[in-house]
Amino acid sequence: MPAVETDTRSLGAQKLAQAQELLRDSALDSWLLLVRESVERPDPNLRFFLDQEFTWNSYFLVTRDRTAALVATGDAPDLVSSGLFEDVRTYKEGPRASFLQLLEELNPRSIGINVSMDDALADGLTAGLRDHLAETLNGTPFASRLTSAEKLLALLRGIKLPSEHKRVKRAVDETERMFDRVSREFRIGMRASEVADLFHGEADRAQVPTAWSRRYCPTVAVGAKAAVGHVRPADEAIHKGCIIHVDFGIIRDQYCSDLQRMWYVAAEGGEAVPEPVLLAHAAIVGGIELAAKSLKPGVAGWEVDLKVREHLASLGYPEYPHALGHHLGRACHDGGGVLGPRWERYGQAPFEVVREGSVYTLEPSIHLKGHGLVSLEEDVVVRASGAEFLSRFPRELPVLTLR
Amino acid sequence: MPAVETDTRSLGAQKLAQAQELLRDSALDSWLLLVRESVERPDPNLRFFLDQEFTWNSYFLVTRDRTAALVATGDAPDLVSSGLFEDVRTYKEGPRASFLQLLEELNPRSIGINVSMDDALADGLTAGLRDHLAETLNGTPFASRLTSAEKLLALLRGIKLPSEHKRVKRAVDETERMFDRVSREFRIGMRASEVADLFHGEADRAQVPTAWSRRYCPTVAVGAKAAVGHVRPADEAIHKGCIIHVDFGIIRDQYCSDLQRMWYVAAEGGEAVPEPVLLAHAAIVGGIELAAKSLKPGVAGWEVDLKVREHLASLGYPEYPHALGHHLGRACHDGGGVLGPRWERYGQAPFEVVREGSVYTLEPSIHLKGHGLVSLEEDVVVRASGAEFLSRFPRELPVLTLR
Repeated sequence: MPAVETDTRSLGAQKLAQAQELLRDSALDSWLLLVRESVERPDPNLRFFLDQEFTWNSYFLVTRDRTAALVATGDAPDLVSSGLFEDVRTYKEGPRASFLQLLEELNPRSIGINVSMDDALADGLTAGLRDHLAETLNGTPFASRLTSAEKLLALLRGIKLPSEHKRVKRAVDETERMFDRVSREFRIGMRASEVADLFHGEADRAQVPTAWSRRYCPTVAVGAKAAVGHVRPADEAIHKGCIIHVDFGIIRDQYCSDLQRMWYVAAEGGEAVPEPVLLAHAAIVGGIELAAKSLKPGVAGWEVDLKVREHLASLGYPEYPHALGHHLGRACHDGGGVLGPRWERYGQAPFEVVREGSVYTLEPSIHLKGHGLVSLEEDVVVRASGAEFLSRFPRELPVLTLR
Repeated sequence: MPAVETDTRSLGAQKLAQAQELLRDSALDSWLLLVRESVERPDPNLRFFLDQEFTWNSYFLVTRDRTAALVATGDAPDLVSSGLFEDVRTYKEGPRASFLQLLEELNPRSIGINVSMDDALADGLTAGLRDHLAETLNGTPFASRLTSAEKLLALLRGIKLPSEHKRVKRAVDETERMFDRVSREFRIGMRASEVADLFHGEADRAQVPTAWSRRYCPTVAVGAKAAVGHVRPADEAIHKGCIIHVDFGIIRDQYCSDLQRMWYVAAEGGEAVPEPVLLAHAAIVGGIELAAKSLKPGVAGWEVDLKVREHLASLGYPEYPHALGHHLGRACHDGGGVLGPRWERYGQAPFEVVREGSVYTLEPSIHLKGHGLVSLEEDVVVRASGAEFLSRFPRELPVLTLR
């Protein structure tokens, strides 16, 4: 990673400043976050700034030049000591009067809230809290100023700062080393669930969480009969002539890695890899090369996906039943746009354009009949000139001779 | 705990059956849960049944006699293998057609969704997903059948089953033993942050999460100057003549404990506890006795709170700036009603009536000028005849002679 971190502010302060810069460049005049019982009902966008929990209705208002918060007295001490919000106000019996007072003082012309039909990460507000907010603003001029902050959030989450790139890179590097160590432990007869245990052991020794639920992280597929998708490692055993496929990631300093690696176990009486496996592997490598070349600022997500989808189709492979890739950051599926097809389930997400500074996964797949899952997943950062790989992108299929 | 667990089904299956029983007893015809990217945007109500994550829009429909789910193909394998939902359907490109087909087949007269202005735990649906649902149902007869499931959820969460009581009791017992061990380590000069470290050590050795954010769990207050509320342990040191107060809980087998304990450190030249401290402690003990006596099925939460509030006021103490107690279960603040005052911030929650089988905390407090926080927190289960203590309720103030 060539990016050098020169900003000495905390990452939270940097992201808050970035939000204000984005507001200055947009038509949106302010951004309002609203949470309660955040342990159980967190808004992932608040965590850009604050590693704190809020029990009662808590309001965070960001304008182009002001940051203010209104919280219950019990939630205030830690927020004040963070020093992040310039103006922290408190309430005891209820927030309504103080919240309206704050709005009157700052008088934002528009108020973006975290509501999105298509972007789950931008959809941080709960339905009842939105009703509560609407009721609070009912009869005031502010009621009609509410709008979705989804465009702001796609930029704030999607355009990563150098210190964010550095964190993802660190998580990726650490994960690559875990893959190295675990793959040296593979043995004939080892079950998929035992492979998963080895990865959990790596995460535990490094004292890092897995990038998604431990239940499916890693997802381990051994051989032709493995199920596809979010599924717990089953009890297939490693045997000669099989593919081992692992999808795994960690969270290091709040940022995720997400990688897929595969190996072929040399067959009885020789190390020749069946041609269909070699061809499928080459098709996947070619697909990722193509994606990386296409991933330039300004292109729409679906266009990148379509190139790879057509490439695999031209080689006679079935269509992969998922997106080519997703943003990667604080969340493994980091919201915003997706490098995916224009299917109903993705809504507007495939139409988001790729931007400089974003980090994506690239993960085309082929489910090869009689052999199993052939897929790699690489993590890349978008530069002005195109994609830069954060991961190693192993272009050769590793062939293991196991006992 | 006299309750004997005789139900051999998994707790998830028991709670799903309870939801169906509650539907049969209510005017509500069906209950719909809807989640996506559940790692980042979980609905805590789904976790009653499923310890799984769902990436794409996932629909769970429960009627009085049917359970059905519709999920993307990638989310299906683990759900199918759980065997919990009778009918699991999948989609690839988008869910709309299959979801409408499912509704047409089951044809529920009303559809409760997880939206609540006042109950954060019942407010499991995000605002954008509700918009997405409304758009999906637009132009169908089902659009007008949507309603809030908050009443159902207050009952499902609030009326705990014997196996839930057993789990809370186990968490409480384990926490009491942690308090015992940690308090034996108290020394003059030990800082509040070191006390917190001891509790974290206990949780780590037991391999259990703390009941709320480790940042504030435990909350440790030493002496007269400690801040009140959700605040990280500061650097006050234990000294002779001070109160040590700790608020701590753990999660054991998905269920929480939540206890407050206090100690007085014997002053220089004698062990006499200042009379104001003794009186305040006695007032708190009396308040909890009063609460336990009042906590009978049918009483409104605010009535129980008011009794204790008036009791402390009659003794000349300032009003505590929070509720007397809250439901305790899978979440530490387990939603539903609250034993609290009719303040704006609690909305309708204080009007919920107490029900047999519910588990509550009782935690009145006095901030005693010149001495600090005087408070206990007990965990109780509501029986037909009144409250039964799950915790030890230490009625004597422990006086420590420390070196």
